[in-house]
Amino acid sequence: MDQSITFTEKDQLKAKPESVQLGFGKYFTDYMFEMDYSLEKGWHDPRIAPYAPVALDPAAMIFHYGQEVFEGLKAYRAKDGRILLFRPEKNMKRMNQSCARLNIPKIDGKFVIKAIKKLVAIEKDWVPTEPGQSLYIRPFIIGTEPFLGVHPSGSYKLLVICSPVGSYFGRNTKPVKIYVEDEFVRAVKGGVGFAKTSGNYAASLRAQTKAEELGFDQVLWLDGVEHKYIEEVGSMNIFFKVDGEVWTPELDGSILPGITRDSVLELLKKWGVPVKEKKISVKKLFKKAEKQKLEEVFGTGTAAVISPVGFLKWEDRVVKVANGETGKLSKKLYETLTGIQNGTIKDDMGWTQEVVAASTSDAAAEPAGTPDVVSEAAVTE
Amino acid sequence: MDQSITFTEKDQLKAKPESVQLGFGKYFTDYMFEMDYSLEKGWHDPRIAPYAPVALDPAAMIFHYGQEVFEGLKAYRAKDGRILLFRPEKNMKRMNQSCARLNIPKIDGKFVIKAIKKLVAIEKDWVPTEPGQSLYIRPFIIGTEPFLGVHPSGSYKLLVICSPVGSYFGRNTKPVKIYVEDEFVRAVKGGVGFAKTSGNYAASLRAQTKAEELGFDQVLWLDGVEHKYIEEVGSMNIFFKVDGEVWTPELDGSILPGITRDSVLELLKKWGVPVKEKKISVKKLFKKAEKQKLEEVFGTGTAAVISPVGFLKWEDRVVKVANGETGKLSKKLYETLTGIQNGTIKDDMGWTQEVVAASTSDAAAEPAGTPDVVSEAAVTE
Ligand SMILES: Cc1ncc(COP(=O)(O)O)c(C=O)c1O
Ligand SMILES: Cc1ncc(COP(=O)(O)O)c(C=O)c1O
Repeated sequence: MDQSITFTEKDQLKAKPESVQLGFGKYFTDYMFEMDYSLEKGWHDPRIAPYAPVALDPAAMIFHYGQEVFEGLKAYRAKDGRILLFRPEKNMKRMNQSCARLNIPKIDGKFVIKAIKKLVAIEKDWVPTEPGQSLYIRPFIIGTEPFLGVHPSGSYKLLVICSPVGSYFGRNTKPVKIYVEDEFVRAVKGGVGFAKTSGNYAASLRAQTKAEELGFDQVLWLDGVEHKYIEEVGSMNIFFKVDGEVWTPELDGSILPGITRDSVLELLKKWGVPVKEKKISVKKLFKKAEKQKLEEVFGTGTAAVISPVGFLKWEDRVVKVANGETGKLSKKLYETLTGIQNGTIKDDMGWTQEVVAASTSDAAAEPAGTPDVVSEAAVTE
Repeated sequence: MDQSITFTEKDQLKAKPESVQLGFGKYFTDYMFEMDYSLEKGWHDPRIAPYAPVALDPAAMIFHYGQEVFEGLKAYRAKDGRILLFRPEKNMKRMNQSCARLNIPKIDGKFVIKAIKKLVAIEKDWVPTEPGQSLYIRPFIIGTEPFLGVHPSGSYKLLVICSPVGSYFGRNTKPVKIYVEDEFVRAVKGGVGFAKTSGNYAASLRAQTKAEELGFDQVLWLDGVEHKYIEEVGSMNIFFKVDGEVWTPELDGSILPGITRDSVLELLKKWGVPVKEKKISVKKLFKKAEKQKLEEVFGTGTAAVISPVGFLKWEDRVVKVANGETGKLSKKLYETLTGIQNGTIKDDMGWTQEVVAASTSDAAAEPAGTPDVVSEAAVTE
């Protein structure tokens, strides 16, 4: 896509929240990126404009037939002032895989990364400075055609919004408690489980609230066919360290191919830790646990990075993992990943991309690769 | 709910489309019903106001986690001028079942029916007069809280919009061609298949476009576990007349409990036609067909009422049903149902509810059971 991104500047920026207040996904920055799709023009009119309500016809497809895909990535602030993105090209690739499943026209991933970099550069003062905090970036596409009838939309809107975030689970260090769901099903092969689309999350709410009522943090899903094999957690992939070996469920079409999952697999291989992507029977896993062979369990995801699991419940069986503490490998993975993300560890994997260069506090700094911006703002403060 | 519905009147009504242009779901009337939900107030502020865009925060739950339910029903115009609804209490009951699955707060079904009647009474000139045409009514609820994190929304909006419609399939009488999908899956037990929620339809688009590319009208879904048992069509339940007996898949959690399906079952029982709700193996069905025992196939749904199926394809097997024509039972069911809906057949099932009384063309006519309306309109035309 060879289009310039217009920028409409605000007169009055929002007050920024205190870093202790952040939580997750509650505050939104001053601007958003937006572009539209029509059958005639394709993706067009890319623009950065003040964060504002989206006005849609009440018959818009998104309200009725759920044609939607989204992504989640983060911008991290390094000690030297640089702002870094982590493997954004992977998010764009996955977004296009989701689009293909949901009949949504593909995007030009490179162009959207440029747009995200431009947006983050404009919002750089919103990127939090405290350890463990970051700017969460949410690109999403919605079908907008006003039409009642089950057909792919003829028009779409892509938006990117940003939220400064702290820890996803509200506390940083305590391992989470996980509940194996055996009644509700999230996804099944042939369905949309591998796509990042809103319907998967809507379907998960009942089980999630049930888990919370029972005193657990998250649901561990089983496969939809036999209810025997472990799939993933609400918004994380899952790993088990069993007798010195690391296992994670294979990608078979019903779980999300996590970017943190992929990064963990690469790190483990690099470190020479034996690792297997495979079908994992919950029964066998609990047997291993009961024989004291289950050494560590952790979830992986952009929001929480590495989330150690301290307790697992399945039917009437409860297992305490690593004595309810964070395991050694979980800790090493967390420190390595966040170190690369924050620029404190040298990125020899080539995973980070610079949005804002080192020690730049002057607004004029233009990172490499930022697209041309045509300013529409009449007045600057 | 004991609240009065406010009415904000427009100065200038829209031009109505010609009846031949109608199609399905393309035109929308002048007004919509709307009410909001908050944790503090519950459902509140019910109002009828001009049809207009809905403005939502870009972080609203509907755009990310798909918390949505909807319904579809119709208002029919009788020859004597009456306007009738068909079993609206069933739609409200199903909507609440969908709400329960999607963690959406329940609605007061009686109150929403009152609101729908009020809206339809106001829009009575939009109810088409030609045979086979009607006013399609779409109530839907969306999660509106601006928050990124997989949790039930704290706020919701219920809207009801109306669209004058003709035939759903674009032509009235020709039996449809149906394709048995064996790769993609719509829903699985434990999931949200029985709920009328947007994600189910998003998941169905790929298969639907594939079927259309192959020259078929609709997809016939198989179960998500074994890919062996027949479930339903894109937006219809399915019936088979086999050797004098009528079969339809049983409700087991993965298919929508259709109101037309229920009405057909009741009529068949009343008529003494042997009928079974059961697991139907696609293999056995095709064997019956190949032995000339498959006499009729028809879909049932609010949009198309009864939709005869003329061709079925599964893997490399194609079956022509009832010589590609409309079968006798399909025809009788269609005529009975539309007769009751249009008031030409006496409704001894108690299925219809009057919105506007006979031969009323004066705007002042107030049907029984309409809630009080507080007019906010300053100027009436
Ligand atoms: C269902 C699901 N699984 C796994 C993940 C982890 O994916 P990633 O590591 O790319 O954030 C997420 C979150 O993004 C998710 O929503
Ligand atoms: C998936 C699905 N199945 C069946 C039906 C038929 O249901 P009803 O007869 O209530 O319209 C519909 C349409 O409403 C539907 O969307």
